[in-house]
Amino acid sequence: MLTFRVFSLFLLAVTTATAQTPPVRVQGERINAHLQALAQFGKNPQGGVSRVAYSEADLAGRAYVLGLMREAGLSVQVDAAGNLVGRRAGTEPGLQPLVIGSHIDSVPEGGNYDGDVGSLSAIEVAQVLNERGVALRHPLQVIVFENEEGVMLGSTAIARGIEAARLDLVSQSGKTVREGVQFIGGDLQHLAAVQRAPGSVAAYLELHIEQGAVLEQAERQIGVVEGIVGIIDCEVTVQGFANHAGTTPMNQRHDALLAAAQFIEAVNRVITAVPGRQVGTVGWIRAQPGAYNVVPGKVVLGLEIRDLDAEKVKTLYAAVVEAGTTIGTRTGTTFQFDPHALSEPALTDAHLQAVIAQSAQALQLSSQRLPSGAGHDAQEMAALGPIGMIFIPSVGGISHSPKEYSRPSDIENGANVLLESLRRVDAETSRNAVRPFLKPIQ
Amino acid sequence: MLTFRVFSLFLLAVTTATAQTPPVRVQGERINAHLQALAQFGKNPQGGVSRVAYSEADLAGRAYVLGLMREAGLSVQVDAAGNLVGRRAGTEPGLQPLVIGSHIDSVPEGGNYDGDVGSLSAIEVAQVLNERGVALRHPLQVIVFENEEGVMLGSTAIARGIEAARLDLVSQSGKTVREGVQFIGGDLQHLAAVQRAPGSVAAYLELHIEQGAVLEQAERQIGVVEGIVGIIDCEVTVQGFANHAGTTPMNQRHDALLAAAQFIEAVNRVITAVPGRQVGTVGWIRAQPGAYNVVPGKVVLGLEIRDLDAEKVKTLYAAVVEAGTTIGTRTGTTFQFDPHALSEPALTDAHLQAVIAQSAQALQLSSQRLPSGAGHDAQEMAALGPIGMIFIPSVGGISHSPKEYSRPSDIENGANVLLESLRRVDAETSRNAVRPFLKPIQ
Repeated sequence: MLTFRVFSLFLLAVTTATAQTPPVRVQGERINAHLQALAQFGKNPQGGVSRVAYSEADLAGRAYVLGLMREAGLSVQVDAAGNLVGRRAGTEPGLQPLVIGSHIDSVPEGGNYDGDVGSLSAIEVAQVLNERGVALRHPLQVIVFENEEGVMLGSTAIARGIEAARLDLVSQSGKTVREGVQFIGGDLQHLAAVQRAPGSVAAYLELHIEQGAVLEQAERQIGVVEGIVGIIDCEVTVQGFANHAGTTPMNQRHDALLAAAQFIEAVNRVITAVPGRQVGTVGWIRAQPGAYNVVPGKVVLGLEIRDLDAEKVKTLYAAVVEAGTTIGTRTGTTFQFDPHALSEPALTDAHLQAVIAQSAQALQLSSQRLPSGAGHDAQEMAALGPIGMIFIPSVGGISHSPKEYSRPSDIENGANVLLESLRRVDAETSRNAVRPFLKPIQ
Repeated sequence: MLTFRVFSLFLLAVTTATAQTPPVRVQGERINAHLQALAQFGKNPQGGVSRVAYSEADLAGRAYVLGLMREAGLSVQVDAAGNLVGRRAGTEPGLQPLVIGSHIDSVPEGGNYDGDVGSLSAIEVAQVLNERGVALRHPLQVIVFENEEGVMLGSTAIARGIEAARLDLVSQSGKTVREGVQFIGGDLQHLAAVQRAPGSVAAYLELHIEQGAVLEQAERQIGVVEGIVGIIDCEVTVQGFANHAGTTPMNQRHDALLAAAQFIEAVNRVITAVPGRQVGTVGWIRAQPGAYNVVPGKVVLGLEIRDLDAEKVKTLYAAVVEAGTTIGTRTGTTFQFDPHALSEPALTDAHLQAVIAQSAQALQLSSQRLPSGAGHDAQEMAALGPIGMIFIPSVGGISHSPKEYSRPSDIENGANVLLESLRRVDAETSRNAVRPFLKPIQ
C-alpha cells in the first residue's frame, strides 16, 4: 500500500513538473497575510468583522481584493450585479471556463474565514499559476461573489437571474439590494446580462471553511462536500394584545412574547424529535412595544430549517407551523407564517468529489465526505455546470462568530487541494472533451 | 338608611353652597375636549399616542397643557426638573399646600387616558374653583410631573432628589435623562432645589384611570386606592455562544435565545405558582447578533415583578433568579441579573381613603377599595405627606395600549370626586390644624 502510494506520487510528479523544479504549490504564508489584511475592513473591537454586504467596510474590502486579483495577473471587471470577475485565458479554443471563487461579505459580528479563505485562495491559485507560468487549457475565472450572506445574491444573478422583487428587500446594511448593488458599482440597467446559460461552466470549484466540527472531531484535513442543504426561512408574527404589565392579571393576558417563547421551545422539540442531521433555529426576534411595563402585544421572529433532503425540510416546517398554531389557540394569540422560497438542496458532482478526494490523497492529506449545513454560492452555480466543494476544518466548529478560526496550515492545505483539483479537471476534461452537463438532482 | 343619606346630602349642600347657586362641579365636557386636543400630540396612525418623555411630541403636549394651566388661572413655572407647577394662593397663612396632579407622558404606543385624565382633571378643578370664586384655605398646587413612565422622574426629584447616575440613563426617547430634562426646559444646575422636605405637603391627591378591570367587573364608578404596588425591574443577560445556524448540530449549541425562551416561561410559572395578585412580565427582548443564519449568542431582556407586599416581590424575584440559573446550567449558557432598585410599595393615607369614599358617596357614586398594580407619581409624593388616589374604570381593563379607554361620564365623575375630596380636606385640615405627618408604612 505504501509502495503503491509512493509510486502514484512519483507518477504525479513526472506528469506535472520536471525533476528539476519543485511541484506547483500555493504560498500559504501569502494567503494568510492577505487574510490578515482583509480582516482590517470592518474589524470589530471584540474581534472578527462586521462586513455586511453593501456596508462601507464591504466596499473597502472589495477594493482591497480587487487589487489582489490584478496583482495575480487576472483581468478584472465588476459585473452588473457587483461581482468581482477575474479572467485568465486558456490555451484551447472552444472550451468553457473553469470557475473558482467564494465571497468576502460577512454576517453581522462574523469571523475572518467564512468566504474569505475561499476567495483569497482562489486568487492565490491564479497568482501561482501565473508566477509559475502554468497554462491551463480552459479559460479560468476567479469570481468574488457579492452579498453571499444575504443570500447568494451575486451568484444567483449569474446562475438564474434576480427577480425584481428581491431588489426591494432591505439588506443587513440598511440599504435595499437595489441601493446596495449600485453602491458597490453594479449596473442595474444591465443586471440581466450577467446571467449565464446552463452548461456554460466546465466546472465550479469552491474552497470554504466547514463552519461545523465534523472534520475536527474526525481528525480529517480535507472535507469532500456531498451537497449543500436546502433551507427554508420564515418570518413568524405572533399577535397578542399589549396591556399594562402592572394592572393586567396573569390570567387575563394575551402575551405575544410568552407565546413566542413557547414557540421557540417547540421549534427545538420538533427538530430534535427525529433522527438525522437537520437543524432548526430562531435567530432573531423583536417584541413590541418593548418596555418593562407593557405586556408585549406583538412579536416577530425569524425561523430557519435546513436539511440535505428537501422533503424533510418541508415536513419539519409543516410540523413547526402546526405547533405554532396550537400555541396560538392555547394562549389567545395568533401565529402568522410568511415563508421565503425554499432554497433547494444542491448535490455536488460525483466525479468532482472523486477528483477532490484523489487530489487530497496525492497531497498526502486525509479526507472524508460530508454534507454542507451552510448555503454557498456553489449551490447557485450548480445551475450552470458541475460543482465541487472543498472544506477545511473550523476550530471548535465555530463560525458566524468572532471566534471563527481555521489554522494557517489547514488553509494552505485547502488551497493546494483547490489548485490540484483545478489542474486535474483542466487536464482530464481537455483529454475527454467536455462531458455532457446534467443538472444535479434537486 | 335612605333618610340618613338624604339628610347628609342636605348638610353637605348647605355647607358648600347657598340654596340659590348650583353646587360646584367640574365641566365634564371641557375635560373631555381637552383630552381630545392633547391626544393630537404624538398621535399614532393606528390609534393612541407615542408621547414618550423628552420626545418632540412630549414637548408639544407640555406646551399645550401649560397653556391650559394658565387659562385655569394658575401661576405656572417649569421647575428645574422640568415639572409644570401651577400655583394658586390660599387664604390662611402658614398652611402647607394641597397638591393635585399627574403626568402626560406615555409609553411607546400608549393610550390617551393614562396620566392625561388626572392631569387635565386637576387643571379643571383649579379652573372651576377660579371661575366659581371658591377660595381654599390652603395654597393649591397643580403639578404635571415630567417622565412618569420612565419612571417617576419628576416626582422623584421633588420627593427625594435624583441621583446623578439616573441622569445618564437613556430614556425611551433615545435621549439621556440629562439631555431630556434640558430639552423640556429643566435646569440641571438647580435640580437639587426642587426637592421638598417631608411634611411640606398637606395632602397629595391624584386621579388616575385604573388600568385594570377590577372596577369594571365589580361595576363600581370610583376606586379608592389602598396603595401602590412595589416593583422590581431587572435587566437579564443570557450569554450563550453565537454560531452558524446551518452547521452547528442541535446538540452542540449554546443558544441564548432558546435559554431565554425557557426563562420567559419559567417567569410565568414562578409568578402563577402562588395565590395572590402579583404579576411578572418580560416586556422587552433583544437577541444578538440577530440573523436567520446565526444561533443567537447573547440575549438581553427586561423582567418586572409587582406586588403590594415588598417581601413577596423579593421572594418571587429570588425564585426567578434561581430558575434562570438552573436553565443556564442545563443549556450551557450563563444568566446575569442586573436589578434596578426596588420601588417600594406605597400605602395611601387611611384618612384620605375615607375622605375619597365619603366624597364618592356624597356624589351618589358607587365605590370600592383596591390596590394599584401600576406605579404612580403618588408613590413618590408619599415621602412628603399623606397621599390619596382616586381610580375610574378602564374599559376592558386595557391600558398602555392604543385601545385604552375611559368613558367621558366616568372621567367627569372622577374629576368631581377629586374636587369634592380636595374641598373636604381643605376644610377639615384648616379646622383641625395640620395633622402630624407620619410617613406611610413601606
